[in-house]
Amino acid sequence: MESDLAKLRTLLTEHNDLESAASVLRWDQATYMPAGGSHARGRQLATLDRLAHDRIADPEVGRLLDRLQSRGSGSDAESDGARLLRVARRDHERAVKVPAAFVSELANHRTESYECWVKARPANDFALVRPLLEKTVELSRRYASFFAPFEHVADPLIGDADPGMKASVVRALFAELRAELVPLVKNITSQAPADDSALRRTFPEDRQLAFGRFLAEKFGYDFSRGRQDMTHHPFMIRFGADDVRITTRARIDDLSEALFSTLHEAGHALYEQNVDHAWEATPVGQGASAGVHESQSRLWENIVGRSRGFWNAFYGNLQKAFPDELADISLDAFYRAINKVERSLIRTNADEVTYCLHVILRFDFELDLLEGKLQVKDLPDAWRERFRADFGIVPETDADGVLQDVHWYDGFVGGAFQCYALGNVMSAQFFDAALRAHPSIPHEISEGRFDTLRGWLTTNIYRHGRTLLPVEIVERATGASLSVAPYIAYLKKKYGELYSL
Amino acid sequence: MESDLAKLRTLLTEHNDLESAASVLRWDQATYMPAGGSHARGRQLATLDRLAHDRIADPEVGRLLDRLQSRGSGSDAESDGARLLRVARRDHERAVKVPAAFVSELANHRTESYECWVKARPANDFALVRPLLEKTVELSRRYASFFAPFEHVADPLIGDADPGMKASVVRALFAELRAELVPLVKNITSQAPADDSALRRTFPEDRQLAFGRFLAEKFGYDFSRGRQDMTHHPFMIRFGADDVRITTRARIDDLSEALFSTLHEAGHALYEQNVDHAWEATPVGQGASAGVHESQSRLWENIVGRSRGFWNAFYGNLQKAFPDELADISLDAFYRAINKVERSLIRTNADEVTYCLHVILRFDFELDLLEGKLQVKDLPDAWRERFRADFGIVPETDADGVLQDVHWYDGFVGGAFQCYALGNVMSAQFFDAALRAHPSIPHEISEGRFDTLRGWLTTNIYRHGRTLLPVEIVERATGASLSVAPYIAYLKKKYGELYSL
Repeated sequence: MESDLAKLRTLLTEHNDLESAASVLRWDQATYMPAGGSHARGRQLATLDRLAHDRIADPEVGRLLDRLQSRGSGSDAESDGARLLRVARRDHERAVKVPAAFVSELANHRTESYECWVKARPANDFALVRPLLEKTVELSRRYASFFAPFEHVADPLIGDADPGMKASVVRALFAELRAELVPLVKNITSQAPADDSALRRTFPEDRQLAFGRFLAEKFGYDFSRGRQDMTHHPFMIRFGADDVRITTRARIDDLSEALFSTLHEAGHALYEQNVDHAWEATPVGQGASAGVHESQSRLWENIVGRSRGFWNAFYGNLQKAFPDELADISLDAFYRAINKVERSLIRTNADEVTYCLHVILRFDFELDLLEGKLQVKDLPDAWRERFRADFGIVPETDADGVLQDVHWYDGFVGGAFQCYALGNVMSAQFFDAALRAHPSIPHEISEGRFDTLRGWLTTNIYRHGRTLLPVEIVERATGASLSVAPYIAYLKKKYGELYSL
Repeated sequence: MESDLAKLRTLLTEHNDLESAASVLRWDQATYMPAGGSHARGRQLATLDRLAHDRIADPEVGRLLDRLQSRGSGSDAESDGARLLRVARRDHERAVKVPAAFVSELANHRTESYECWVKARPANDFALVRPLLEKTVELSRRYASFFAPFEHVADPLIGDADPGMKASVVRALFAELRAELVPLVKNITSQAPADDSALRRTFPEDRQLAFGRFLAEKFGYDFSRGRQDMTHHPFMIRFGADDVRITTRARIDDLSEALFSTLHEAGHALYEQNVDHAWEATPVGQGASAGVHESQSRLWENIVGRSRGFWNAFYGNLQKAFPDELADISLDAFYRAINKVERSLIRTNADEVTYCLHVILRFDFELDLLEGKLQVKDLPDAWRERFRADFGIVPETDADGVLQDVHWYDGFVGGAFQCYALGNVMSAQFFDAALRAHPSIPHEISEGRFDTLRGWLTTNIYRHGRTLLPVEIVERATGASLSVAPYIAYLKKKYGELYSL
């Protein structure tokens, strides 16, 4: 007779296959689907999502988990089996606790809100989306209520993206980070801005893409188990450990667009390609959290990809790829250009130093909205006020302010932003730990070799998938709890040298 | 309360969505999937196929169909509702009648047999696959047995691909066709062969593909609801009426490869794009049968695409696309080259006149194998003997004979071949009827206009989807029952002129 564990694995695999199939349909939707396909695709995706939800919410999954745990499977809490059961239970309970009627109400609201925002942003019309955003806050609070009790209403929302993270912890980390970043940004931007005009020349797209692939392969992204396609918004997507794809966009008049988005997505892809194959098609066979994922995209994009050593290795190749365009640009000028810091309005265009401030502002407002301390009607003013405090500038329009991100206006508030700043924070802490273990890494990077770094990351982060919580990964990999200190130190050292602070 | 009909539609839509999702995964597998993806993809497809089967086989579908039919829904047998119920019942019963254990045994056998053939064909080793082919015949007979009683053991197999068709009817049609084709081929091939060297020059692939797309658009294939990609074996695939894709392959040294496979697949795509949108996501929202489908691919590829009038309209464009390559080739020489008739060994390379003989040979052997009149061990000899009788030549190896097609060696015998010859037969009968209704069609084709023809085909064939059986489509559209006479007349007239018979 089939064992309970085998039965559970069968149900979990089916859930995984349905989710992976939905991912293939989403990838196609973003890359190659003709315009006419959108209506049927929406319906097909709704069907797959519903069936995937039904599978993980299946009462039989709950019964099997109960039986396995009562019989002592997983009594050794550190065993692989126990970890799989814990994560499966977490996913099962999350699926079970939210009533079907609410899921459907929220889905309808999300569509309506998104469609409204698509009109409101170009029209700079916050009033148009305000009633919907008010409902969004209410629905997000109701969603959280299904997971009561909690310390903070945002905890269940944060926990969906970053398991184990809580509002209180994140808020404290972010306050510390902000206190350091605001004066640092002020200090840097009081100097003459770096000249990045070299990146704004004309760069044929096919050569940009070929160069990005060349670097991604150098990192260790395996194209026999992945590929790169063009999309409006770049992303990484996993259909299995041996089919992990990235997408890119390119601008003929901006060398940094395709280049750094490729390095960023390649970082995500390295993570997914190196999750232990033993976890394939189970709930733990993927990256641990949004924050840990972002730590890897940012580590490869920024800590490696915008470092002096990295371009020491590859600037010659870049000049060969664009001989006419870059002949007169020195390595030093290029390095300064790709690390230009400026006070800007738009999060997605922000540099390494200012980026977290954009995120923290949004995170704080999310908590305030969910707590009821801030009303939606007061949000645009609050945005301007906070922006002035953090950046010393104020957006002239809501389109460039409170309306700029799709998050919130896609019908849900809470949990979507913290990963970006957490990822930056973790990236430096991980990189420091890798350097302590292998002091040769900076030298290897300056020779274009990444095996030691990728090996350390695989051993300490990638292979574990979701078997460890983000905080466990950080503690085991770095020997310390999550801290902003390494990231602050990294920024101060790098930009202190660049801007002679 | 939701009506029974609404409930049924919901279940049928879910079935359709699962099948469409599987199609997207198959399309990706054939076009863009990296090599590493194949293992996970196989598992994902098996899951989707199983869930789709479970949905249509759901006893609730049977109960709803019973209730609806007993309450008189569909009492008007000609109503749309009645037609949908009939087709849904046919699909439901087909799914229910085959035991799960057999489905799984057959699936395993198919994989094993295919993998064996992949080695046996290049090694020219029929003995290697013989035991598996013997099991294939036995399994195919067992499959048929689930649908007993029947007139001929092949009827359920033929009916899966071509609903309503029977071995006795197809055998009689094919005997009549063969009796005409054998002397016609003999007659033509006794003359000097046409010179098709003009097609074997060097033609840059991107221009070939662009020209194919240009012609497909002229036919009326709507690329805002479709697209073209490259694959090893060309195919058409439907994800919905507004997302119907084709694939193509190109050879730099053979102009006809990409050109005619594009016209062929565009014919399939025109059919699917023009099924009535009212049937979207139901079991009748797709082409009626393999044979009717093939009639459309062959009509657009051959009757239109290899006609004198068609190239009257477009040979100038082709010469403009390939000015160096075709400057010295007259329209007449080109027309003769694309209609070269020769006695050849390989079905998939065969011309319009010999093609059906390849198919009829296989169909006859299928019936003989299933009846037990022919033993697998005697098949290679039988193949050579029949080939000599029909073509006047004999393949030197089994690789070019009995081992050439993947069909049979993919683990199933029966039902896969007849559609190709039925399609040719129907194509001429449909085209004749369209001409009787609109005598202007040949003139319009020679001016590069296809609206009248496509309109007639849409009204009489495409829009109906699977609501009509193939024989009903033929009778309603042409006013006569299926007959080989129009196809014979078409071939005799066209090739009589080309070869001055």
